[in-house]
Amino acid sequence: MGEFKVLEIKQSIFEDNDKDAEAVRAELKEKGVFLLNLMSSPGSGKTTTLCRTIELLKNQLRIGIMEADIDSDVDAKTIAEQGVKSIQLHTGGMCHLDADMTRQGLKGLGIEDVDLAILENVGNLVCPAEFDTGSVKNAMILSVPEGHDKPLKYPLMFSICDVVLINKIDVMPYFDFDLEKCKEYIAMRNPNAKVIPICARTGEGMEEWAAWLKEEVNEWQTN
Amino acid sequence: MGEFKVLEIKQSIFEDNDKDAEAVRAELKEKGVFLLNLMSSPGSGKTTTLCRTIELLKNQLRIGIMEADIDSDVDAKTIAEQGVKSIQLHTGGMCHLDADMTRQGLKGLGIEDVDLAILENVGNLVCPAEFDTGSVKNAMILSVPEGHDKPLKYPLMFSICDVVLINKIDVMPYFDFDLEKCKEYIAMRNPNAKVIPICARTGEGMEEWAAWLKEEVNEWQTN
Repeated sequence: MGEFKVLEIKQSIFEDNDKDAEAVRAELKEKGVFLLNLMSSPGSGKTTTLCRTIELLKNQLRIGIMEADIDSDVDAKTIAEQGVKSIQLHTGGMCHLDADMTRQGLKGLGIEDVDLAILENVGNLVCPAEFDTGSVKNAMILSVPEGHDKPLKYPLMFSICDVVLINKIDVMPYFDFDLEKCKEYIAMRNPNAKVIPICARTGEGMEEWAAWLKEEVNEWQTN
Repeated sequence: MGEFKVLEIKQSIFEDNDKDAEAVRAELKEKGVFLLNLMSSPGSGKTTTLCRTIELLKNQLRIGIMEADIDSDVDAKTIAEQGVKSIQLHTGGMCHLDADMTRQGLKGLGIEDVDLAILENVGNLVCPAEFDTGSVKNAMILSVPEGHDKPLKYPLMFSICDVVLINKIDVMPYFDFDLEKCKEYIAMRNPNAKVIPICARTGEGMEEWAAWLKEEVNEWQTN
């Protein structure tokens, strides 16, 4: 069982979030810490994907996880069982994290001994997309049951993500989900987004995702 | 094909949304219009559920639909094909609707000839729960793939809903979804919430839902 604590996040006092996010990123660069901001709808499989990612990378990278949630501790407990350092961030009803809230989380987590910090953002496809957290890369999970039309309906989220994981591909036969159409819609929003179909539950596609993430961490730490 | 138009919603100028919501409700009462506020995560099946609800009730009630979306028209087109009056509300990136935004929608839709107006709120389990729209009743859809733990993670949403539709029950065998636990968690948040398991795609449970809704509309119009 890894470390586990709960932090009540305070509302930010900074006016200019974009500037503040740049400051967070500069701090992370200096300390050689890569921050991934992971976003999705509620129930898309963020926590399961994280657990599987930890399994694949924990012997190669020192990992720390921040679980943002409105007020439950369900996910942070699950993550702590993976044997990595984690912290639960309670947003007190707020629907997103901005850069200063992320900074509070990083401080609470402690990043001196961390290569890869992952922020599991609040489950929401709207608000988190509007606030730069200071992350090095943004990832999102779209799960098959949500439907392939989501890039049309939540354009900002898809446009700011460097990678889109399409999760729960094992249940594709039971849903009207058109993977090619989904990729096409994502490309309309963001031609540079990498798309990786996965099934976090069975492990399918997870090695490609872990390899991408490890490569990004290495590049951030060495360049 | 029903009527179909697009309305760009303006940000509210009212300070006190709760008071404004009461004013919207009083206006609706005077005109004999029942407003249902329908909320859920992205991809839970709101539009499919609406289409099926319209099919079941359109010969008994005069229905008008407001489809709130950040900027697409996908859903309003689908609804217009059902032959009822509908309007697409573009929120311009905003993550929820408040009472004045709803008033703009009702005015755009035109409710003189409507018994049942339904607002399909923005797909989000966080922000819409914080703003009273002026609706007579609140409903939400939780779909099976999202998981039975959602009432623990999005407490406010479950606490303000009069009815929770548990959708996509046909795929229950493929997901770890415990219906009894889900009902228990919902009751923890809101002991008065009515829970109706449905499958909008196959029609299962939809008659119970339509009967509940019709009864509520009748009561609002006659008492």
